[in-house]
Amino acid sequence: MRTSIATVSLSGSLTEKLAAASRAGFDGVEIFENDLLASPLTPEEVSARCADLGLTIDLYQPMRDIEAVPADEFARNLRRARHKFELMRRLGADTVLVCSSVSPLAVDDDALAAEQLARLADLAQDFGVRVAYEALAWGRHVSTYDHAWRIVDTAGHPALGTCLDSFHILSRSTGPKDVEGIADIPGEKIFFLQLADAPLLAMDVLQWSRHYRCFPGQGGFDVAGLVRSVLRTGYDGPLSLEVFNDVFRQAEAGPTAVDARRSLLVLQETVGIAAPPASVAPTGVAFAELVTPDAEPLVAVLGALGFTRAARHRSKPVDLWQQGEARLLVNTGPAVRRDGTGLAAIGLESPDPTAAARRAEALLAPVLPRRRAPEDAPLDAVAAPDGTELFFCATDRPEHANWRTDFVATTGPGAGQPYASAARIDHVALTQPWHHFDEAALFHRSVLGLDAQESVDVADPYGLMRSRAVTNADGSVRIALTVAAAPTDDTVHAQHIALATDDVVAAARRFAAAGGRLLPIPANYYDDLAARFEFADGELATYRELGILYDRDAYGEFRHCYTPTIGKVFFELVQRDGGYRGYGAHNAPVRLAAQHAVRRLTGG
Amino acid sequence: MRTSIATVSLSGSLTEKLAAASRAGFDGVEIFENDLLASPLTPEEVSARCADLGLTIDLYQPMRDIEAVPADEFARNLRRARHKFELMRRLGADTVLVCSSVSPLAVDDDALAAEQLARLADLAQDFGVRVAYEALAWGRHVSTYDHAWRIVDTAGHPALGTCLDSFHILSRSTGPKDVEGIADIPGEKIFFLQLADAPLLAMDVLQWSRHYRCFPGQGGFDVAGLVRSVLRTGYDGPLSLEVFNDVFRQAEAGPTAVDARRSLLVLQETVGIAAPPASVAPTGVAFAELVTPDAEPLVAVLGALGFTRAARHRSKPVDLWQQGEARLLVNTGPAVRRDGTGLAAIGLESPDPTAAARRAEALLAPVLPRRRAPEDAPLDAVAAPDGTELFFCATDRPEHANWRTDFVATTGPGAGQPYASAARIDHVALTQPWHHFDEAALFHRSVLGLDAQESVDVADPYGLMRSRAVTNADGSVRIALTVAAAPTDDTVHAQHIALATDDVVAAARRFAAAGGRLLPIPANYYDDLAARFEFADGELATYRELGILYDRDAYGEFRHCYTPTIGKVFFELVQRDGGYRGYGAHNAPVRLAAQHAVRRLTGG
Repeated sequence: MRTSIATVSLSGSLTEKLAAASRAGFDGVEIFENDLLASPLTPEEVSARCADLGLTIDLYQPMRDIEAVPADEFARNLRRARHKFELMRRLGADTVLVCSSVSPLAVDDDALAAEQLARLADLAQDFGVRVAYEALAWGRHVSTYDHAWRIVDTAGHPALGTCLDSFHILSRSTGPKDVEGIADIPGEKIFFLQLADAPLLAMDVLQWSRHYRCFPGQGGFDVAGLVRSVLRTGYDGPLSLEVFNDVFRQAEAGPTAVDARRSLLVLQETVGIAAPPASVAPTGVAFAELVTPDAEPLVAVLGALGFTRAARHRSKPVDLWQQGEARLLVNTGPAVRRDGTGLAAIGLESPDPTAAARRAEALLAPVLPRRRAPEDAPLDAVAAPDGTELFFCATDRPEHANWRTDFVATTGPGAGQPYASAARIDHVALTQPWHHFDEAALFHRSVLGLDAQESVDVADPYGLMRSRAVTNADGSVRIALTVAAAPTDDTVHAQHIALATDDVVAAARRFAAAGGRLLPIPANYYDDLAARFEFADGELATYRELGILYDRDAYGEFRHCYTPTIGKVFFELVQRDGGYRGYGAHNAPVRLAAQHAVRRLTGG
Repeated sequence: MRTSIATVSLSGSLTEKLAAASRAGFDGVEIFENDLLASPLTPEEVSARCADLGLTIDLYQPMRDIEAVPADEFARNLRRARHKFELMRRLGADTVLVCSSVSPLAVDDDALAAEQLARLADLAQDFGVRVAYEALAWGRHVSTYDHAWRIVDTAGHPALGTCLDSFHILSRSTGPKDVEGIADIPGEKIFFLQLADAPLLAMDVLQWSRHYRCFPGQGGFDVAGLVRSVLRTGYDGPLSLEVFNDVFRQAEAGPTAVDARRSLLVLQETVGIAAPPASVAPTGVAFAELVTPDAEPLVAVLGALGFTRAARHRSKPVDLWQQGEARLLVNTGPAVRRDGTGLAAIGLESPDPTAAARRAEALLAPVLPRRRAPEDAPLDAVAAPDGTELFFCATDRPEHANWRTDFVATTGPGAGQPYASAARIDHVALTQPWHHFDEAALFHRSVLGLDAQESVDVADPYGLMRSRAVTNADGSVRIALTVAAAPTDDTVHAQHIALATDDVVAAARRFAAAGGRLLPIPANYYDDLAARFEFADGELATYRELGILYDRDAYGEFRHCYTPTIGKVFFELVQRDGGYRGYGAHNAPVRLAAQHAVRRLTGG
C-alpha cells in the first residue's frame, strides 16, 4: 500500500520536508498550502523536485469554508477554487481536501451543501481534479464522517468523494461501534485516508488540572466572579494560589512568586478588596531605544526609512532619530555593546508619569535605578518580564519632566526634515523568554493598563509560536508579545519596530531608492492573494515587485513590508486603513520562512 | 486579605520555594506533602524557617482517599491520618486538605462519607487540626463543590469544613449560574479557598488536533481498527499521515520522517497488509557498556557493589566486570572519552540475533557499522533514538557468534568470584532527548518487540518528567525511558543501571563497608512511610539508616537504594519481591530531590 505524509507533519522549509520524506521512503506527500506559499520554488519547480525525489503529490490541502453558503459567497468561493485548481494543475496534484465549513456564514442544509459541492466538483473535473470532502471534528454543521459521506452520496458526483481522517473520527469516538459506519461507504468513494494518533490525556480534566493551571488573570476562567461569590459568604481565610503548571515547575521560583503575587493583587483590585494606585494607561509611544555596538548598519536602514538624526544626548552617546512622531534613540554606550544590536527600551507617553510609576511599583514591577547625570530629566522606569526597560515619559509637556531637554538638536544635514515615510511607531513586537509569556501578558495589562487581545498561533517553519497583543484603547500604543511554543535558541525570532505610514508603496519605493532591500516574499504568496482577494489593476504586481504583504479583516486593510534584520532587530512599514485591528498574523508564517531563507543564504 | 501560595506552584527545593514566597510578599503557604518529604529539614525546622520568613503554614495538603470506604479500610485511613496530624502539630499547621476520594474502594454513599469525615474531624480536633474537604473535579463520587458541601453539612462537625478550589469549580462550569450555590454555604464553614486560572483551550478538540496529534502507535487511538474498517470498503488510496504536533514542528525533519515511516510500517503489519521480518523479543540483558575517560571512580563503585573484573577485551581497552549474570563493560577507548562517563550500549540477549537485526533494519533502525577486528565476534547492532547502541547478542550459545570469546579471562585478584550483591541487571533507565520520547517508545516496542507500559509523570524539583517502561514478557529485559517535560540542560537526569539483588539490606551494608556512600534520603520520607505502611520491628530504622526506599503495589514489594552519580550514570540496587511490577516511581521525586541536594553540596 502506498504511503504518504503531510508536509505539515515535518519541520523546516518545503524542500527540507520533501527531502526528509523521500529519504525515509515515503511514496508521496500531501502539500500543505502554507508550506507552498512560504516556498521560493514555483509550483512547477515543486512538482519537478517531488519527481526527482520519487514522490507523488497525493493531496493538496486544505480548502476551507466552501459549502452551504449564500449564493454570492459561493460564487466567491468558486472563484477562489478556480485559482487553486489552476495551481494544482501546475503542481501535478489531482486531489484536493475540502474541510467541512466552520464559517458563521454556513447554514445547516445538507441539500445545499451537496449541491454546492457537486458544482465545485464540476469545476474541479475541468482541471482533472477530484474533491475529497472531510468532516472536521469541530465543523460547524458537519462534524462526523458519516454525515460528510451522506452529503457526498447525495451529491452523486464522480469527482466528489470523501476523505477520512483518523483524528477527526476517533477523537469523537466513544467505542468501536462508532467506526462501523465506514463499512457502508464504497471504497472507490473514499478518495483519501489521513492517519494520526493522539494521546487520550489531552481532553482529561485531571491532566488539564495537573499541567495547565495558571495564575488568576492568565487564563480564561472568571476567577474574580468566583471570589466575589465566596466573599459574600463571609469567608475570611486566605486567598491561596494552587497552580500545577509544567512551565512554572521549570521556571525560577523568585520571578514566578512575584508573578503570582501580582496576580492576586490584581484579583483583589478587581473584586474591590484592595486599591493599589489607579491604572494610568499610556497615550502613545514617546520613543523606542535601540542599543548597538556599531551604529553604521542601523543608521543606514534608518536613513532609508526616512529618519534623520535630530538631536544628540547631552552627556551620553545616544542619538535621537526622528520623523513625524516616530522617535528612535540609538545608543552606542559601552554598557550595552555586548549583546549586539537590539531593542532595549520603550518610552511610553503617560498622562501622569509619576502616578504610572507608583502603580507599577505597587504591582511589583522591578523599579530601575535612575542612572542619570544630575542635570538630566528625572524619568521613572521599570523592567518588563523580558528585561525591556519601560520609561514613563511626558514629551514637551511643561508640567512634567521632559526627556527631550536632555537632547541637543543637531545642525547636521537633514536635521529638522519633515516627515518622509513614517508618521509614528505603529507597534513594537517583543519576543518573550519562554517561561514568561503568561506573566508578560498579565504584566502589561495590569502594570501598564493595556488591554490584552486574544492569543494567536503562528506557524514558523521550525516551530509554532504564540503571539498576543496588548494595546491601549485608541491603538496608539500596541505591543505584540511573542513566544516560541517551546525553548529554542533560534535567534530569527527577533524583536521588531513597526512604523506607521499612510502610503506603504511610496515608503517602500523610497526605501529601495535609498539603497535598501526589503525582505523578498515568494511569488506563491501573491498567487494565493490573487485567489483570496480582488485587487485593482496593477496593485498586486506592485506588491509583488516590492515585497509588500496584504491582509484584511472585518474592519479594514493592512499592507506591510519588512527591512533586513540587524542583530536582533528589524523594522516593518505598515499601512492600516479603515480600522484594521490585527498585525498581519496570517502573513507571519510567510514572513518567518522568508527570514529563515535569507539567513540561510547569508549565514546570518 | 491574607495571601498564600501552594509550594507546588513554585520550582525548586522547599527552602527555595519558601524564600521566594516570602520575598514576593506572601503571608503564608500551603505545604505540599511531597515538598516536605523531599526536604532534609525536620518539620520543626520547616516551621522555624517559615516563622523566620514571616510565613504562616495555612494548609497541609493533600490527604486522599479517606471517606466512604469499608470499615477496615477506614481504620487504616485513620491510622494514616493520625500520623499526619502529629506531623502537622510539629509543623504548626492547623488545616488539612482532604480531597474527595478517587479510590475504587469508595462507595457512592453520602451518609457514610459524612459519618467517616466526622470521625476524621473528631481525631483532627484532638490535634488542634481542622479538616477542609474539597471536591476534585474528577472525584469518583463527589466531584462538585455543592455535593462536597452537602456532605460537610450533613456531618455537622465543628472541625470539618469545605475547601473551594476555583479550578475544580470552574473547569466543570458552563456559566455564571454554576457558582451561585456558593452563596448557600456559611462563610465560617469555608475553611479554605484555593485559586487557579486555566486556559480554556486545553479541553478543546481543535486545540487537541492542532497541537497533540502523533504518529499511529504513539497515542491512545485504535488507528489500526479504523484502517481495517477502511480497507474492507475496498479503499486503495495511500495511507497518509497528517500530524499537527508542536514537538515535531521543532524537531529535525529527517528523524521525524523516519519515525513516521516506521509508524506506518508497524500499522501495516498490525492490519496484515505488510509482513516485515517477525519480531524477536530479547530474553535478557547480556551486558551494559559504560564509557569513561577515567575508570577509577567507576571501578571503585563497581567493586563496592560486588563486581569483579572478570575479563579484558583481546584488542580494545574494555574490561568485563561481572557478578552473577550482571555484566558491565567498562570502555576507556579514546573514541569515547569526550563526553565523560556514561552508558553507551546495551547488549540484548536474543534467541536469534540475526533475525532480530533483520527486523530492526526493516523497521528503519539505523544499523551500526561493525567496527571490529577481524578476529572479533560479528555482532549486529542498531542505534536507539537516543543514540544508545543496541547489540543483539548470544552469550555462550555455540550456534551463534559469542561476544564473550572476544574477552580474555583475567587472573587478577577477585576474578571468578561468586555472586556477591547483585544477581543480574534489573533494568536500565535511559534519559531521552526531548524531541524523541514518543519515537523512543514506538521504537523499542516495534523494533525490539518489547511491550510499552503506561506513561507516568514524575515530579522533579525543577520540572516535571515523564517515564515509560518497555519490557519483555517475563521482565528479564526492562528499559525505563524518561524525558523532561520540556528541554532542560539539567544534567541530573542521568542514565542509570538497576541491579537486582535478593537482599538489598545486605547489599547496601556491603556497599557501605567497602567505603561506598549511598544517596542520603530525608528523614521526612521515612515518617511518611511509617504513616503509609506497617513494618516489622526495626525494619524502617534499617531503611532509614541505609537510605533504602520502599514501595508496594498490588503484586508485591520493592526496596531500592542509589549510589552516587559518576559523570552521567549512577547505579541502583533493587529487591523485587512477590512480583512487584513497577520501578518505584512513587519514590522518584524524593530520589531526584536528594540527587539535587547532593549536587548542590558538592557543586557537581
